[in-house]
Formats: sequence, structure tokens, C-alpha cells
Amino acid sequence: MATKTVARNPRGIRKQIRTGQWRGVTSGAAPGFVQANLAILPRDLAFDFLLFCQRNPKPCPLLEVIEPGSVEPAITAPKADIRTDVPGYRIYRDGVLTAEVDSLVDHWQDDLVSFLLGCSFSFESAMIDAGIPLRHQEMGSNVSMFITNIPTQPAGVFSGPMVVSMRPIKRAQIVRAVQVTTRFPATHGAPVHIGDPSAIGIKDIYQPDFGDSVEIKPGEEPVFWACGVTPQAVALTCKPPLMITHAPGKMFITDQRDADYAVL
Amino acid sequence: MATKTVARNPRGIRKQIRTGQWRGVTSGAAPGFVQANLAILPRDLAFDFLLFCQRNPKPCPLLEVIEPGSVEPAITAPKADIRTDVPGYRIYRDGVLTAEVDSLVDHWQDDLVSFLLGCSFSFESAMIDAGIPLRHQEMGSNVSMFITNIPTQPAGVFSGPMVVSMRPIKRAQIVRAVQVTTRFPATHGAPVHIGDPSAIGIKDIYQPDFGDSVEIKPGEEPVFWACGVTPQAVALTCKPPLMITHAPGKMFITDQRDADYAVL
Repeated sequence: MATKTVARNPRGIRKQIRTGQWRGVTSGAAPGFVQANLAILPRDLAFDFLLFCQRNPKPCPLLEVIEPGSVEPAITAPKADIRTDVPGYRIYRDGVLTAEVDSLVDHWQDDLVSFLLGCSFSFESAMIDAGIPLRHQEMGSNVSMFITNIPTQPAGVFSGPMVVSMRPIKRAQIVRAVQVTTRFPATHGAPVHIGDPSAIGIKDIYQPDFGDSVEIKPGEEPVFWACGVTPQAVALTCKPPLMITHAPGKMFITDQRDADYAVL
Repeated sequence: MATKTVARNPRGIRKQIRTGQWRGVTSGAAPGFVQANLAILPRDLAFDFLLFCQRNPKPCPLLEVIEPGSVEPAITAPKADIRTDVPGYRIYRDGVLTAEVDSLVDHWQDDLVSFLLGCSFSFESAMIDAGIPLRHQEMGSNVSMFITNIPTQPAGVFSGPMVVSMRPIKRAQIVRAVQVTTRFPATHGAPVHIGDPSAIGIKDIYQPDFGDSVEIKPGEEPVFWACGVTPQAVALTCKPPLMITHAPGKMFITDQRDADYAVL
């Protein structure tokens, strides 16, 4: 029953994932549909984490919070199952990665609350559509990500610096890049910084904290967006007894279209 | 020490309120600064209510959620005290209004969580600035508010219909009204409906459920925005043991400017 053909629609792809027919990285899968970062925490941390996301919407844009114990993303993907429909999961105990698994069926608890957070794929599509090339995609590599000196707004037990992603943009296209990403606040929205990396605490633009080094060419400026790694990094620093996330690059594919989240 | 002169800046007005020098309705006070609806609930209902607001951002646009037990709106009005800086409060027990008070100092509990929600004053200023007249203001009356058949997205114990406010707009100005209010998602944002009231379950446009009847003249259409009465109405239907709100028209005045919340 194994197949090499990935479905184009979210339901088809989620079924292939659920049945083990496909478990790849989701970049480029179901074009036009919103993909989500996943963070699962026990209920007694959920209020603080929800408040953290509410206070920090740029790094932590909430697409959906699933009711405690429920496994169905009833708003963004009705009938899906958050335990089986992501190609890979990471399980952290007391802040330490202890397992990478294909399914959460054997790991589920009735007190778990699942948070789906917007990711950068949506606004990257918007930039490509606007004729703004993205070097990391052209190079087949990951974006550069940096821990900055920009503080997040703390909430309860959660606090820490903002993580940003960097994309080199031609000077003539920076205004357009701001405009098109502004349309998508649910997927990190407008940049948090343009230009001089040292102004936000980045010492060496070619030594990212996460992802790959990406060249900045003459006539370009580095442009920085709030990054979905922020909530994961912040949550893990408080060493929750249990936290589950998607595996890197293996996102949850929702039924929502990018256009559904455009503010204008 | 009583004064008839109301300060123009938020800190000055809040001080006058706190010291009992002024306790009026806040419409028109501190022009250009964001005013907030207040809802206070015990911590064990706070996660569900926060989730309800997250799922229903148009009727429930969160400006700030204050940490459990804390009385300082550290984000929107540092050094203010939510127990004393609102001109009037209503206390509900088991869903029933039991008292209207000037101060919460004697009613405070360490488990209370305060929610500050955007109100329509900000987008009304934007419409006035754009040359769109507002009849209820011209008449010195309140907007008409209606319980609709538009369901909110339930969260935990909270569910119920959306309440909307209605403003008659000249047909030639409706597009502009959509545009200028779209800029302010933190204060209800774009309309939820334009035209035929029966399409959203309103039987008689001149029999509002709350507020005053407002005339619709030839060449105008009724335009409907999500209303901040929604979260109060929804919260009270589940009869929380304690809920505290601002008294009608007596909002909390923040230090934030309307422009701080404009998305474009």
C-alpha cells in the first residue's frame, strides 16, 4: 500500500500520514494551505502558555488551541486527529528530548492541550507570489535563525528572548516585503527588524543559532521576522514535565487556505 | 478637592478617578487613547475565557490579560490599579447583578484574572476622521445592539450568540467604512455584516436588544460590527460564582494610542 505520490489536498495528505504511506517534510505539500507548528503541554501549564502566546502574537501566532484532552482540531481541520496526522513528533520530558515518534496514540493523556501556531510557509508563498525571491529556498537550505536581545513579554512561568528568522532582501523590494507579510499576522506578519543585525543582538550573521547560514549579497539587507521556534524554546527553558512538538520540518497541514488569514 | 475639569491624558484621568474627583462616563475622555471593556473572572474559569476570546477575536479583542491576582495592567497602563482606576464597576454573583461599586479594593481576591477588551470608541474615531458621520453620536444616544443568529466558537463552558452593534452608513461610504475599521482588529475590526438585518437573525431593526433605536435614512444601509457586549453576555449565561465588569459607559482608559493598534 506504500505510495510515492503525495496527495495535493490536506485531507488526502493527512490520510497518507495517518496510515503510514507518507511521512516526509511538509514544505511544498498542499500548496496554498496553512501549515502549523505544534506544541502540546499539560493543562496546568496551558493557561500560562496561552497567555504567553496572546502577549507575543508575532512569534506565537495562534491558529487554534484544542480543548484539553481533545485530539480534533475542530476549527482548522475538522475530523483530523492531532495524535496521528503529523509526519513526526518529538517528546520532551523535563525539557529534554527523550523520543521521536510517528504517532502519539500510545503517549496521549487526557490533560494535554494542543496549540497550533502559524508558520512562515504562508508568508513565504506571498513573497514568492509578489516576485520577491527567497535565497534559502533557491539554495535548498533552511532559513538562518537567531536568538536576539529582543525580550518577549513574559507570562506566568514563561519568558525568554525572541528567536527570529532572516531572509536577505534586495533594497528595492524591502517595502514590498513589509507590505505583503503585513497581510498575514496569523503567520508572523510584518518583520520585526530591517538591517544591522547587531541592533538586535546578533553578533555574526553567518553563525545562526538554528538552521543554515544564508549569504547576503551586495544591494541586499538582512530582514528579520519573528520565528515560531520562539515558543518552543521558551517553553522548554521552564522544563515542563511533558511537552510534545512536531519534528523539524514536519508540520500539521490544516484545511485553511493562506487567503483565509489575510487581513486585507 | 473636587474638580469639574477632566484631565486630557490617561494618567491624569485615572488619578482623578482613583481619588474620587471624577467618575463620569468615559466617552470622549482622553481622545486618541484606547479605552477597554473590563471582565474579571476567577482563575479556574480564566483558561476557558481566554480560549473563548482567542477563538472569537472580533467580538472579544484582547488588549491585555492581567496575571492571576495582579491588579496592574503592566502592558497597557503600567502603574495603574484595575481595582480603583475605572469610574464604576458591576459585581455579578452566580450570573446575577448584586452590586454597583466605585472601587474593588474591598472585593478583590487573589485568584481573580482581569481581561481588558477593545471597545468601539477607537474605530468610531477612525470613521469620524474619515468623514463618516455616526448618527448615534449626533443624536447623543447609544448605538443599537442586537443578539444575532451568528454563533460564536464555543470554548469550554462558554458559548452563545454574537452580539453586534449597528451603525447606519451612506451607501457611498460603506467601502470606506470597511477599510478604516479593518485597520483596527484590536477594537472589533471590519464589519461582520452589511445590509439586510434578517440575514443575521434580526427581526426588527428598530427594536434593539441593548442600547437605543437609531434611524436608518434613505440611501443608507445598516452596517453591523461585532460588539464587546458579547463576552459579557456569554460569560454571564454560565453563571460564574463571581464576575466583575465595568459599569456601562465607564471604561478603563489605557496609555496606548489608537494608532498603536492600527495594522496598517
